[in-house]
Amino acid sequence: MAGAVSSRGCLKIRGAQIRDLLDSKHNVLFDCDGVIWNGETVVTGAPEVVTLLKQQGKRVFFVTNNCTRPRENYVQKFCRLGFTDVAEEEIFSSAYCSAAYLRDVAKVQGKVYVIGCQGVLKELQDAGVPVVEEDNDSSSFSIYDFPLDPDVRAVLVGYDENFNFMKLAKACCYLRNSECLFLATDPDPWHPLRGGRITPGSGSLTAALETASNRKATVIGKPSRFMYECIASQFDLDPARSLMIGDRLETDILFGINCGLATMLTLTGVSTFEEAQQYKDSDSPEKKDFVPDYVVESIADFLQVLEE
Amino acid sequence: MAGAVSSRGCLKIRGAQIRDLLDSKHNVLFDCDGVIWNGETVVTGAPEVVTLLKQQGKRVFFVTNNCTRPRENYVQKFCRLGFTDVAEEEIFSSAYCSAAYLRDVAKVQGKVYVIGCQGVLKELQDAGVPVVEEDNDSSSFSIYDFPLDPDVRAVLVGYDENFNFMKLAKACCYLRNSECLFLATDPDPWHPLRGGRITPGSGSLTAALETASNRKATVIGKPSRFMYECIASQFDLDPARSLMIGDRLETDILFGINCGLATMLTLTGVSTFEEAQQYKDSDSPEKKDFVPDYVVESIADFLQVLEE
Repeated sequence: MAGAVSSRGCLKIRGAQIRDLLDSKHNVLFDCDGVIWNGETVVTGAPEVVTLLKQQGKRVFFVTNNCTRPRENYVQKFCRLGFTDVAEEEIFSSAYCSAAYLRDVAKVQGKVYVIGCQGVLKELQDAGVPVVEEDNDSSSFSIYDFPLDPDVRAVLVGYDENFNFMKLAKACCYLRNSECLFLATDPDPWHPLRGGRITPGSGSLTAALETASNRKATVIGKPSRFMYECIASQFDLDPARSLMIGDRLETDILFGINCGLATMLTLTGVSTFEEAQQYKDSDSPEKKDFVPDYVVESIADFLQVLEE
Repeated sequence: MAGAVSSRGCLKIRGAQIRDLLDSKHNVLFDCDGVIWNGETVVTGAPEVVTLLKQQGKRVFFVTNNCTRPRENYVQKFCRLGFTDVAEEEIFSSAYCSAAYLRDVAKVQGKVYVIGCQGVLKELQDAGVPVVEEDNDSSSFSIYDFPLDPDVRAVLVGYDENFNFMKLAKACCYLRNSECLFLATDPDPWHPLRGGRITPGSGSLTAALETASNRKATVIGKPSRFMYECIASQFDLDPARSLMIGDRLETDILFGINCGLATMLTLTGVSTFEEAQQYKDSDSPEKKDFVPDYVVESIADFLQVLEE
């Protein structure tokens, strides 16, 4: 689907233009970080927008590359930040979708070695996918003699603040078996933190393992189509009646385009309007796939038209 | 220089052919791992080859991407493995050359944040380049509040078995300052260990940081020319009278070609004769730069002709 539209608008819209767009869509897919919240700070108006969209008959989904929480914790976070009507079934995180992929698509017969956080482990557990229990007291082993579990059939890499050399070395050894699957929750290279800091993302850890293993990971998160297919396997979605809203051109917008959805950049997160315009002005066909159809300052811009 | 020779021989040589080649060269550059030793196991005959080359008036250098030891420890290792006449001045490791680069080429004014092992730290210390003292008890800090040293002007990444997420995150934050240099000791993706295991290399850790920082490291080790320039700045080297001997086509052989040296693959390490032939048969001009002029089973093949 990518590249099918030769020139996307990158059109800043408001008021009646937003109204017309929403009238033509039945499904609204939101990225989370940078779109409806930033860390623990909600984007002003976002809870009301979600409620009003639902009241007006739209179906709403949350599609996030953030793998740090299991779905049930997302529900708690939505509640904490003032969203009153978000259900677990509407939340598609890269952790949830990775577990679904391993169980339903790869049908992995064996254990998964996980570089990742509790969000990933919990989703795998909920999906019934067995994982290697990491021995946290691994200090008695060196890179020469750490034990390897013979039942491992897949390595899954996600965001992991406890990432270290030993985990990388173990994953590397498992991947020497070419029948061992190599998955990554998402390709995000880094994430913004408060105060101008950034933190390395899953994509950074995956790059280390790709280099050390001389293999390429199958990436589950956006911009890969799989998260859309995961939603579509549970809900009847017409791409032509769906809108993807995100803050990162290289993941959210490309994801929407890969899945044949209308796309909207919101400027409350990582990417800027200038970057979108630079992609639009570029001569590279690949970069055209980072250009959104529409741009809004914030999804709070929906409020006025939804409240009419 | 790369690509200047349209077709390299990949010629398996022995006996008189080795004699003729050595007669035409004055300088012999050896890689270490996989060429003169494998871990703590010396390649049979290597000490005698080095001694005989020197007795016959050749200059010998050791050019290794391995950054784990300072030069003085390499001298000890050479002694331990039976080499009786290797001097510190003949050893050019990526750690030593990285320190030389920071001091003499980049002339860094400030501290260096190091992801690396004792070999790297010691060489920087010997070169008088100040480094950030890593707080090993950093458990009281999180990614949100770890302290950053305002005097850091360079990040240097090398092999580090104590690599962890926090180090990656710190390096990432330093590199947000575009004036902060980004160096890597070497690009090696992995290293063989005994028993068929491998361990991630500097190149793997560098890939993580390159992805997280969206920057590219300046790589000091082979195949970059810098290690050759480092030798040439201390010794009068005629490339036309120099031979580079290594076991990795993508680093050692490419390095030799990048520097205009004759190149020889020895089959006691990572790369195979078949891989060299595949590169030779390839249609890709880039892959031709991985093809050695000559191939020997082992540098022990030199013994017969040197003892004549």
